[in-house]
Amino acid sequence: MKSIRTAALVFGFPIIVLLSVTLLVLVFRYIYIEMRGPVVDEVHLAAKQTYLEKVEATKPEKFNIVLIFFDDLGWGDLSSYGNPFIMTPNIDSLADEGLRMTNFYSASPVCTPSRASILTGRYPPRTRTDKHVFFNDDHVVGVGRRMMGYANALPKEEITLPEVLGKVGYRTHMVGKWHLGSREGYHPTDFGFDDWFGVLYSNDMYPLDLYDNDKIIIEDQREGGFFSAERDELHPLAGEGIDQTELTEMYTDEAVEFLEAQGAEPFFLYLAHSLPHVPHYASKAFAGNSKGGTYGDVVEDLDRSTGKIMQALNRLGLDDNTLVIVTSDNGADYNGSAGSLRGRKSEILEGGQRVPMIVRWPGRVPAGSVTDAMAMNTDILPTVLDLLGIAPPDDRIIDGKSIASTLANGTREHELLYYFPTTKTLPGAIRDQDFKLNWATGNGGRDREHLSRTSGVEAHEVSNLYPEVFDRLKSQLAKMRDEIELNPRGWVTAYGESQEDD
Amino acid sequence: MKSIRTAALVFGFPIIVLLSVTLLVLVFRYIYIEMRGPVVDEVHLAAKQTYLEKVEATKPEKFNIVLIFFDDLGWGDLSSYGNPFIMTPNIDSLADEGLRMTNFYSASPVCTPSRASILTGRYPPRTRTDKHVFFNDDHVVGVGRRMMGYANALPKEEITLPEVLGKVGYRTHMVGKWHLGSREGYHPTDFGFDDWFGVLYSNDMYPLDLYDNDKIIIEDQREGGFFSAERDELHPLAGEGIDQTELTEMYTDEAVEFLEAQGAEPFFLYLAHSLPHVPHYASKAFAGNSKGGTYGDVVEDLDRSTGKIMQALNRLGLDDNTLVIVTSDNGADYNGSAGSLRGRKSEILEGGQRVPMIVRWPGRVPAGSVTDAMAMNTDILPTVLDLLGIAPPDDRIIDGKSIASTLANGTREHELLYYFPTTKTLPGAIRDQDFKLNWATGNGGRDREHLSRTSGVEAHEVSNLYPEVFDRLKSQLAKMRDEIELNPRGWVTAYGESQEDD
Repeated sequence: MKSIRTAALVFGFPIIVLLSVTLLVLVFRYIYIEMRGPVVDEVHLAAKQTYLEKVEATKPEKFNIVLIFFDDLGWGDLSSYGNPFIMTPNIDSLADEGLRMTNFYSASPVCTPSRASILTGRYPPRTRTDKHVFFNDDHVVGVGRRMMGYANALPKEEITLPEVLGKVGYRTHMVGKWHLGSREGYHPTDFGFDDWFGVLYSNDMYPLDLYDNDKIIIEDQREGGFFSAERDELHPLAGEGIDQTELTEMYTDEAVEFLEAQGAEPFFLYLAHSLPHVPHYASKAFAGNSKGGTYGDVVEDLDRSTGKIMQALNRLGLDDNTLVIVTSDNGADYNGSAGSLRGRKSEILEGGQRVPMIVRWPGRVPAGSVTDAMAMNTDILPTVLDLLGIAPPDDRIIDGKSIASTLANGTREHELLYYFPTTKTLPGAIRDQDFKLNWATGNGGRDREHLSRTSGVEAHEVSNLYPEVFDRLKSQLAKMRDEIELNPRGWVTAYGESQEDD
Repeated sequence: MKSIRTAALVFGFPIIVLLSVTLLVLVFRYIYIEMRGPVVDEVHLAAKQTYLEKVEATKPEKFNIVLIFFDDLGWGDLSSYGNPFIMTPNIDSLADEGLRMTNFYSASPVCTPSRASILTGRYPPRTRTDKHVFFNDDHVVGVGRRMMGYANALPKEEITLPEVLGKVGYRTHMVGKWHLGSREGYHPTDFGFDDWFGVLYSNDMYPLDLYDNDKIIIEDQREGGFFSAERDELHPLAGEGIDQTELTEMYTDEAVEFLEAQGAEPFFLYLAHSLPHVPHYASKAFAGNSKGGTYGDVVEDLDRSTGKIMQALNRLGLDDNTLVIVTSDNGADYNGSAGSLRGRKSEILEGGQRVPMIVRWPGRVPAGSVTDAMAMNTDILPTVLDLLGIAPPDDRIIDGKSIASTLANGTREHELLYYFPTTKTLPGAIRDQDFKLNWATGNGGRDREHLSRTSGVEAHEVSNLYPEVFDRLKSQLAKMRDEIELNPRGWVTAYGESQEDD
């Protein structure tokens, strides 16, 4: 017995000491981080204020904007993009009446960075969203993120589209999923939206409260805690909360209500649906209708929602002067379809980032047009600014470009686009119109770069046939990696030089 | 200083003791395993001898067999399967003159188990190849496999196609990659091949010696060791060895030489190419020709090789009475094309296991035919036995079925096929002609089963639309899992009951 006790002491003591010290360090680190709060860049926060004041002085020719943003809708999930099972007649009509883009990208293969990009026009590292997605501040991952020094909310100094639009007299309204910070002071209404109705993050996260501005109108009372998530609808947390079978309809009703309340003032409606992200809850009225299964039901609910928005615009006589954009935050997740593209959500393969993009704007975007011109959701902010004649901020790089002429006549505006992996800061791939180069990753692609034709299925490496393309893209990608490494946030230097390359 | 020394002792001592004990246990375990050698099931080894003696007494109507087996050729890598960049006119001609199968599978998404299946007609766990691929016995993984109790060579008691054919008077010749055991006594000539010319395992493994029977004719003298591999052609090991740019041609010459030496006796030629597995070495004469890059060059080399085999058969007047089969051991690896299929090598998604399959046999297989009937490379042994009128062994389950009538007229012979993940013993998916069910994996598919249409891209889960299909496939898969769990080797019970289900 004595020897066992001695052994337990000798072996156990050092382990207990180590664990205790580690825990203490972590607790103090957490308290420190909590007290400090999210990091704010005061210089660029001031520059943002100055910029917004300048914007306020402009008097642009205005139009309405409706941005419908789906969550995890894949490139192959709409009938207008070739899906044989899921029928999306309302969205397809938008394509018939406007433009369908076949080489449009989300700025990231996951939610948070893509959402930051669509609202700021900037690549993921610029907005500190390069390390994957934000979690509730009180969730184990949210705590862990902050302890590791990662952002868990959009930095205050970022300039968002609704902030700019608000300054020139737009009514700005958000409905749906935010996913850019759960902490007080970092909600949609803190980033330029006049009003907000929706949820703070993904519909598989916990607790999933429904907000009407800062009032919780449906509180998540399910049996969950620090580690909880609802990974799919077959494994729900027990208890009361949002009935997700009604979520798309609630969002739609709220959006229509907003539209009906509009007068002469221009408006920006950002309708960021929670679906078809998992869990997949279809509306009760139409469940089982789609040949695409429950996932198809969910997408067809979203199509009906889009139809209702368009009907409202039409009924209110607003549809002519409204730019309607429909796209997705990243490629297909497990149950969605990436069509013939390789890879899925979370990968910088095409299936992870190439998404549907449909733009309707009568008289400004030709009906029934289709373009293979490359573009990305970083382009939305600069395009809207361009169309309004508002100069972009000059203290920071805006990675996107105005694609106003792409919308009007299919002009190719981009020479290069970069792809940002979910857990890395530096870009991992680059493409021009005809070729894509993946940086050496050491993974299944072996430890080598991979050049492929964008017309193929991202298979056969062809650097032997196009050595000059390979060299050019590799050096451009290396240059961008260097630039991002030196200046991840994309602040323009004191000398006023932009480090933008693309 | 003293306190540091004490701390080092207190903390270091238990760690050193633990490591030393672990190391000692591992060393003794290794010595024990080495001394015992591969496990042999004496009962079924005896049954094998009895069976082969019985086979010897039969006098079948014979025909020649040429089985061309590619390594990692993907479902979308041939022009006859829709590849727009890689031109494979010789293989395509075989399809024009025979049958092209669109729902043909390798029995595994990786090399070793697939090779065991094509030679034995049995699913991976039957042949103890369910735990991924065999390595050289002296490689770190080979040592590790044996220490963990995994097989690293095909068990002696397995009955192979060349063993059966040899008994009825066939000359049996193997050219190329074996990958069913590197240990002496477990080479191709120990499993029924009269002669063998080739390599023991994959072309990225080390040391890669070229054998002519048991004589090494090109010794790997590269600078490698216990941990070495050549992951791709851009990172070669320095030194002398096989020039892989000549490997396909050496195999082809050897195969043609074998054909030219044949007289009246029937023959079985198993030409198991090392390529297009990585590293991708193209022949010098044609390098740069293919629009599919270096990978395309490699595949086009294989196509020219196939052309030479067919020219030799034709020149020798053998092509009418020869069954020619062309297929692949698993789906596309990183650089190959899975066409529109989801997933790749090592996954039980369609792209990992669905492969090209072309069969030419003038007068017996209608020219220009195409079938969507399901089949698997486990069917090759039972089909050949059926065509020869040889009864299969009755002490063990042969999972494959004769697809003789599929070849003749497209008859669907299978009701169900099972998919075996690379590192698991139990099957992870099942399909019938119209649907595929993936078992709940807890991975990207969430913790749920996934039923999809085989006509789609393996996306949307449709169990809500086809509950009876879901229940049926799930219970069949569960039944097969139970059976394999109880009787992984598929030995028929003492009562003579077969536990085969499919």
